[in-house]
Amino acid sequence: MPTLILVRHGQSQWNLENRFTGWWDVDLTEKGIAEARAAGELLGVKNLLPTRAFTSLQTRAIKTLHLALEASNRLWIPEVKDWRLNERHYGGLTGLNKAETAEKHGEEQVHIWRRSFDVPPPEMEQGSTFDLSADPRYAGIDVPQTESLKLTIERVLPYWESDIKPVLASGETVIISAHGNSLRALVKHLSDISDDDITGLEIPTGQPIVYDFDDAMQPGERHYLKDR
Amino acid sequence: MPTLILVRHGQSQWNLENRFTGWWDVDLTEKGIAEARAAGELLGVKNLLPTRAFTSLQTRAIKTLHLALEASNRLWIPEVKDWRLNERHYGGLTGLNKAETAEKHGEEQVHIWRRSFDVPPPEMEQGSTFDLSADPRYAGIDVPQTESLKLTIERVLPYWESDIKPVLASGETVIISAHGNSLRALVKHLSDISDDDITGLEIPTGQPIVYDFDDAMQPGERHYLKDR
Repeated sequence: MPTLILVRHGQSQWNLENRFTGWWDVDLTEKGIAEARAAGELLGVKNLLPTRAFTSLQTRAIKTLHLALEASNRLWIPEVKDWRLNERHYGGLTGLNKAETAEKHGEEQVHIWRRSFDVPPPEMEQGSTFDLSADPRYAGIDVPQTESLKLTIERVLPYWESDIKPVLASGETVIISAHGNSLRALVKHLSDISDDDITGLEIPTGQPIVYDFDDAMQPGERHYLKDR
Repeated sequence: MPTLILVRHGQSQWNLENRFTGWWDVDLTEKGIAEARAAGELLGVKNLLPTRAFTSLQTRAIKTLHLALEASNRLWIPEVKDWRLNERHYGGLTGLNKAETAEKHGEEQVHIWRRSFDVPPPEMEQGSTFDLSADPRYAGIDVPQTESLKLTIERVLPYWESDIKPVLASGETVIISAHGNSLRALVKHLSDISDDDITGLEIPTGQPIVYDFDDAMQPGERHYLKDR
């Protein structure tokens, strides 16, 4: 039976510093590394061993994947990286500390940017330190200047349909190592969560979430692997 | 211009213990990890940044690749793993200490197995601890019971022609992280080395070897990146 495992990357340096990260490429902390390894060990303990892997183009998700695969003795499975699994692009907020941003723009505005479904933050300023338009990693890709969760979903779901779902449908056990908002996009779709409710749904770091699919490729209940 | 970078994995636990390893999946030592990182740092220093990666299905080569890519800020490039880049299969010698093997079979016989071009070691015994025929990693693959260097070349070169060379020909900078004998196979082909000479050619661990190709996909001189 097709099984899908979702893992949000372990703690990153900017999670720790409470800064808006988005597409900026921040590494895992020591805690994040430990979380990724623990996720992989849990895959082994529960004997839910992935056969195919997908991740974003961002170091924190790729390293989480590699550490989890190594801990489950699955480093050898095929892996595909794609920008469409990247974190939501936080536009002009990228790099800012969340408390400072609240001081500057007001708590309420920051809450709207973080928690509204379709209001994107201000666009990234051209020439900003955090502008990735010229990064070779994104050559040939139209790097967004900002994204709401809605816009994030609009690039995650087509990729799910075109690239991930067909692999899953062939009976594979697929692991996706990605980000809070790219995983929200998938969970919203698979668990049929409303626009209003999805923005408040927290995806914990390093905690594998599992969906089993039936023969008609309908997903069952979402559950944590630790509870399985 | 197409450029090819070959890296032999850093020191493994069985390199250290002087045991025949072949397809057995042995991890890197701390020294091996440091060698892999240093290889990646050298890629950065020399500004020779890979855009596509190939490796074997064996942990020591995959980890060497990941560590080198991380150290050169290239963890995001596409990577493909294939069994045809695996180390030469050492058959019934797998797991044996080289000194013990010499005591048992004689120095001369061991020298022949290690250094002849076309004499394979004895076959792996069925049911041996080291028999990988039932390993899920090799599902669908006819796992060899032993290999000479000649037999190793006979699976490496078709893969080079079908999967790696076309990518290189499209102008990419390709890195291959692999093993002493799968890399010998490539170096023999690219540098036109005789059957007699190739068995004595040592490929140092963690030391990137570079070939630049011309428009007709003819390789130039083989050189170490450190000398570039």
